[in-house]
Amino acid sequence: MSAWLLEHAWLGDGAHATPLVRVEVEGGRFTRVEPGGSADGAIHLPGLTIPGLANTHSHVFHRALRARTDDDSAGGGSFWTWRTRMYDVAQRLTPERLHALARATYREMVAAGITAVGEFHYVHHRPDGSPYATDGVPDHAMEQAVVAAAAEAGIALTLLDTCYLTGGVGEPLTPEQVRFGDGDADGWRRRVEDLATRLPAEVVLGAAIHSVRAVPPAALPVVADWAAEHAAPLHVHLSEQPAENAAALAAWGRTPTALLAEAGALGSRTTVVHATHLTPDDISTLGAAGCALSLCPTTERDLADGIGPARALVDAGVRLTLGSDAHAVIDLFEEARATEMHERLRSGRRGHWTPAALLAALTADGHAALGRDAGRIAVGQPADLVTVSLHTPRTAGAAPGAAAVVHAATAADVTFVLTRGEVRVPHGGAAGVAAEVGAELAGAIEQLGVR
Amino acid sequence: MSAWLLEHAWLGDGAHATPLVRVEVEGGRFTRVEPGGSADGAIHLPGLTIPGLANTHSHVFHRALRARTDDDSAGGGSFWTWRTRMYDVAQRLTPERLHALARATYREMVAAGITAVGEFHYVHHRPDGSPYATDGVPDHAMEQAVVAAAAEAGIALTLLDTCYLTGGVGEPLTPEQVRFGDGDADGWRRRVEDLATRLPAEVVLGAAIHSVRAVPPAALPVVADWAAEHAAPLHVHLSEQPAENAAALAAWGRTPTALLAEAGALGSRTTVVHATHLTPDDISTLGAAGCALSLCPTTERDLADGIGPARALVDAGVRLTLGSDAHAVIDLFEEARATEMHERLRSGRRGHWTPAALLAALTADGHAALGRDAGRIAVGQPADLVTVSLHTPRTAGAAPGAAAVVHAATAADVTFVLTRGEVRVPHGGAAGVAAEVGAELAGAIEQLGVR
Repeated sequence: MSAWLLEHAWLGDGAHATPLVRVEVEGGRFTRVEPGGSADGAIHLPGLTIPGLANTHSHVFHRALRARTDDDSAGGGSFWTWRTRMYDVAQRLTPERLHALARATYREMVAAGITAVGEFHYVHHRPDGSPYATDGVPDHAMEQAVVAAAAEAGIALTLLDTCYLTGGVGEPLTPEQVRFGDGDADGWRRRVEDLATRLPAEVVLGAAIHSVRAVPPAALPVVADWAAEHAAPLHVHLSEQPAENAAALAAWGRTPTALLAEAGALGSRTTVVHATHLTPDDISTLGAAGCALSLCPTTERDLADGIGPARALVDAGVRLTLGSDAHAVIDLFEEARATEMHERLRSGRRGHWTPAALLAALTADGHAALGRDAGRIAVGQPADLVTVSLHTPRTAGAAPGAAAVVHAATAADVTFVLTRGEVRVPHGGAAGVAAEVGAELAGAIEQLGVR
Repeated sequence: MSAWLLEHAWLGDGAHATPLVRVEVEGGRFTRVEPGGSADGAIHLPGLTIPGLANTHSHVFHRALRARTDDDSAGGGSFWTWRTRMYDVAQRLTPERLHALARATYREMVAAGITAVGEFHYVHHRPDGSPYATDGVPDHAMEQAVVAAAAEAGIALTLLDTCYLTGGVGEPLTPEQVRFGDGDADGWRRRVEDLATRLPAEVVLGAAIHSVRAVPPAALPVVADWAAEHAAPLHVHLSEQPAENAAALAAWGRTPTALLAEAGALGSRTTVVHATHLTPDDISTLGAAGCALSLCPTTERDLADGIGPARALVDAGVRLTLGSDAHAVIDLFEEARATEMHERLRSGRRGHWTPAALLAALTADGHAALGRDAGRIAVGQPADLVTVSLHTPRTAGAAPGAAAVVHAATAADVTFVLTRGEVRVPHGGAAGVAAEVGAELAGAIEQLGVR
């Protein structure tokens, strides 16, 4: 048993924090959470402690692109020219390189207070499309690289195994995309069913439809049905760019949302990612289905996607969660802040989200979208804790509560991280962890030889 | 004489950094800048070293509002409801409290690599509008509080003494605004002329027109003429909110830009702040006049101002600079990043600004808008240096160059700061400085008793 005395703790009940909360942990879960509890044998954690954060959308290898697609030669580009650079990195991945890069990036996440990640994983095969295998038997080497990286970093993994069949509406896979593909939806299903037997118990296996660009209408129900049969999370990139909508309308006379609805792919286990360019009908459909949204504001601004109707979606019944996606930034506080700020930029008004609502999106609602019951400091929950200093140049002066986290803190202000009862960032040791993570990232990216 | 060996230095000539640059400093200026120079007697600075940053728009006391205007009770607000909260802080200021808050906030800036600030200062008088005085003689206590704070923090100050006469177009000052006013433009001029005789030589005294809301057309030339006579910087809030444009058009049939142009207030020493809501004619006028722009993206998103036409202004001939304004964020790297990101959100395209252009805006162009020849690592320039680690969780993997700073770094990644030859953040000592700054900020804000 270990015990901690939290100077201020956000227990999820509104804007304010509760002072002096004693928590006890055994077997990776909270066994006692007691405001005004005794300090006996407890380690004191100064600052504001919140539940572990959930990053609901990650393409982990994109971390290698940070600050490398914005130089002079990239001037005047678009989402689609960025994608060319991204494919260059995808081509360079081997299981070993992916493992190193994913472990370093997941460690960056943990140091930023992220205790669970949804990895939207589509680099399944060798560059020529043949499966990784040992003695002729598929060994899922890329998936296992991600699984091992997450375990070593101490982050809870929801592996969203992605179906990726076409290079665009009615188009074959391009040479760079061949390693993403499984031939057809049954090929995807067979691979995933085999993979399911080879994963450690702590990994949540979910399904992903890359997008309606990459999965034709006839294949959508195969993925949706597998997810339904296993009560597994189902994630899908939705209407990130206007070109996707135009292609869907031209080919099938339906929006991507309508296609997914017809295929039975929308429901309470479904998380739609981005959902930037929607019609009013799309918004009603997603709300009525009770989907979750993975908004990724720092990526959506980086990739010039635009500002999606997040507030309107939540008003319609969708649950908000947040993701760092392409990892130009790994700081979920910034994602939460940007959710409010982008809505301000669009509307000319302030106050669209309370800080408490954004913190709920970062924690309990995010974990739920990853198929986990976590993200609250409460008896029985996984013992994930994240402490934010209230005395850094950024946070000093803020009152202890949700606003301090959402409207002042950055990832650099995280001073302590516990994941499932294990200390990952020791109090007083954040600088040391940061130095290790920096060195590991630099080495993993160097290895890839990205220009 | 002191000497430094910079592992990588951005010398202002494009995207890339130069390796191993020896710099020598004497009397607060660079006396030698030598790529490939000897390491003899030099202190090694690992990472990427850039010139000192210029923060061209600051209302220093707004720092007390960070994370305090976004809580549940503020839901559904606007720029104008935010202003009510800001006026509450302005009312609480005394020379002592302003000094403490300004010193702490300027130290936060220096720790973030900011070596010069333009303080757009309008809290001139006692709350009842009477001047601060010693033995019946005006002593400019509020201005001197700002001057002392800047000197103690080691930041170069351009004091933009602000003319603020009306509470809105044709409206008297409200009770909360009375302490900003000088009665009429001649009152402003007399006060500034007296103040000019009482400032230390290192302070640049500039003029500011608060806005066309607060300075009537007849008074504009008085401020513009004073600035012209003294070849001083002249700054003005311009078209931050649509309501300002509507009021100007209703009262005078002209946009704020046209009013300023007619008054002779636009020229190469003029910096317009925000410039969010402009007509095509306004953009041409500002470009032809050769003005500078102080864009404040993190404030403009916080206050729901909207996304201004920064790229179009620069294409028309305006020089870009950046400011942290209301200090919801003090991180000029984030301002630079947001300049590009907001344009991406609006346009659906990437690559509007090269990283090198944004770094020039943060350095030499920013200092010029503050009436200073600084912001380059070159012989004869003030010896301001800012080192950014390339091995933090945020920056690791980025190539040494402008993109690493603009598209990866945060203020927390600054590891060394030299201002005019004095070490303000010692290499290896950033954490200690951050702790001091945090404690000082917390104390100064506590003293104000802001709710």
